Amino acid sequence: MQRTDVNTLGEFGLIEHLTRNFPLQQSSSLKGVGDDAAVMQFGSDCTVVSTDMLVEGIHFDLAYTPLKHLGYKAVSVNVSDIYAMNARPRQITVSLAISNRFSVEALDELYEGIRAACEHYGVDLVGGDTTSSLKGLVISVTAIGQAPETDLVYRNGAQVGDLICITGDLGAAYLGLQLLEREKRIWQENPGVQPDLEEQKYAIGRQLKPEARKDIIEVFRKVDLKPTAMIDISDGLASELFHICRQSKVGALIEESGVPIHPDAQMLALKFKLDPITCALSGGEDYELLFTIKPSDADKIRMLPEIYIAGEIMRAEDGIKLQTKGGNLHELKAQGWTHF
Amino acid sequence: MQRTDVNTLGEFGLIEHLTRNFPLQQSSSLKGVGDDAAVMQFGSDCTVVSTDMLVEGIHFDLAYTPLKHLGYKAVSVNVSDIYAMNARPRQITVSLAISNRFSVEALDELYEGIRAACEHYGVDLVGGDTTSSLKGLVISVTAIGQAPETDLVYRNGAQVGDLICITGDLGAAYLGLQLLEREKRIWQENPGVQPDLEEQKYAIGRQLKPEARKDIIEVFRKVDLKPTAMIDISDGLASELFHICRQSKVGALIEESGVPIHPDAQMLALKFKLDPITCALSGGEDYELLFTIKPSDADKIRMLPEIYIAGEIMRAEDGIKLQTKGGNLHELKAQGWTHF
Repeated sequence: MQRTDVNTLGEFGLIEHLTRNFPLQQSSSLKGVGDDAAVMQFGSDCTVVSTDMLVEGIHFDLAYTPLKHLGYKAVSVNVSDIYAMNARPRQITVSLAISNRFSVEALDELYEGIRAACEHYGVDLVGGDTTSSLKGLVISVTAIGQAPETDLVYRNGAQVGDLICITGDLGAAYLGLQLLEREKRIWQENPGVQPDLEEQKYAIGRQLKPEARKDIIEVFRKVDLKPTAMIDISDGLASELFHICRQSKVGALIEESGVPIHPDAQMLALKFKLDPITCALSGGEDYELLFTIKPSDADKIRMLPEIYIAGEIMRAEDGIKLQTKGGNLHELKAQGWTHF
Repeated sequence: MQRTDVNTLGEFGLIEHLTRNFPLQQSSSLKGVGDDAAVMQFGSDCTVVSTDMLVEGIHFDLAYTPLKHLGYKAVSVNVSDIYAMNARPRQITVSLAISNRFSVEALDELYEGIRAACEHYGVDLVGGDTTSSLKGLVISVTAIGQAPETDLVYRNGAQVGDLICITGDLGAAYLGLQLLEREKRIWQENPGVQPDLEEQKYAIGRQLKPEARKDIIEVFRKVDLKPTAMIDISDGLASELFHICRQSKVGALIEESGVPIHPDAQMLALKFKLDPITCALSGGEDYELLFTIKPSDADKIRMLPEIYIAGEIMRAEDGIKLQTKGGNLHELKAQGWTHF
């Protein structure tokens, strides 16, 4: 039998490959695989469902991840997908596979983080499954959200001339991870050395306790703005921009100067001899929102904090490009993370 | 810091412990943790959500589980929970954690089983997450179903005098597992010996490719019957009966002679020197339905195939008892599986 390594397809290629024979047949299925969340309609409002799995050793390292933060993050990354549909999360289910290495007290810590996130995002924990694993911790969260059908924003609605917007700032979560990994190596080699991470609180906080942009969705309602396309930035700006461009059949031009990067992240990137814009483009785990708006809506966001115009949607044949601060044009490369 | 082993709480105790601080706050959350599925209402009909995680080495052994069957089973066990709410499954999400040991072809096999199940149960695959694991395969499926609120059947509606009904037959899935485990041991000791499992097709099929009782839910509609309480039998009859009795605050009397056991399972139990009724009570993985009906509804099911009256709901103070074929009364013990 032929044996094709999953790496040859990449994460997104693999998902497309595996789900190619699954046409939607239920009249209640409005949107299936291929956006931030699935959309169902069983009555007046739509039900929006998203699911994400976090695996020990792949997505988190318990050497430097407090379980409480991990619980919080597991919820954040899922409700982030619901917000990226311009919907409001309402419920979550949490499934756990745990080895006997975990005590009840450890799980209490984890659930304390989940509880804090439920409170912050206003969602109910309504179900799940708790089972054992031979080794390691796996957390699978499914978030269920709600929105009127007319509010939903997909990845495929960007049009030529639309403005590209980014919330918050990018790259810091990736740099926080680099820092934690470095400190772990130092500590492994010199168990006596106590790391001083106090100075790098911002980047570490962005990595360990990301916040989904609940506030932005509320702002959209307040200023009566509906983006034309939206996605959450979990795999880095470049990857998410490719998703929007591919599904909207358009190109894009991003200005380096328009990509928001926190001063602490700028500094930290220099320490690691990394280009800050590379961290923003390819770093991932920022859980900010990338969205496009009609040019006529520009005035609605100009005065808003934490929303930045970073570029413009172009024709597909123009490609997806970055204009550097020096004025050069770079073709962006698509890349999701490949953990395999 | 104190360290309490999770075994001290047991599966259900652990779930209760971990979710005790999560009151429902959303008006759309009709039912949270503690039934076969959660229930939400975003419009006219209710949305029913259930999730289950299957972990390699805990829930399945790829030494004797074809990936296609595993995919089918992962869907069956989830839609079974939706049927147990008297709702119809509509969509599923599938999240996978896979090590690089799995090729694309292997995953295609898995998805072929998922696709066959989607077709059989009439559900759409609408989302999921595909990630890597350091070791082993984890499948987390979430099923989303739909029902008018008045159709939903919970675990807590059984009343004294109600009849206890069981669909299909019990115990065979557990015996199929014993057989597969035995053949694996023989094969490991004598790789030359080819197992002949042809004779035991029934029990092995029940273990490897369980079917959720879609047909029973349709029959309920046809004969205009709404059970007073219902649960799917995933952990053995005794455990499920305890769930219904505890949540309905009642007791139960089961007649051994009323518990349906397939002739092949009877024979196989004898070969393994096991009591068939013990396999039915504690075996698990049958994915049949256990439900209670008002005595006045008895005529609606008497002529139906595959539905058996096995006992009666008693007062809580009467306990939960089994009347053996010999006429003795045995107190039943609660026991979920404990994989930890």
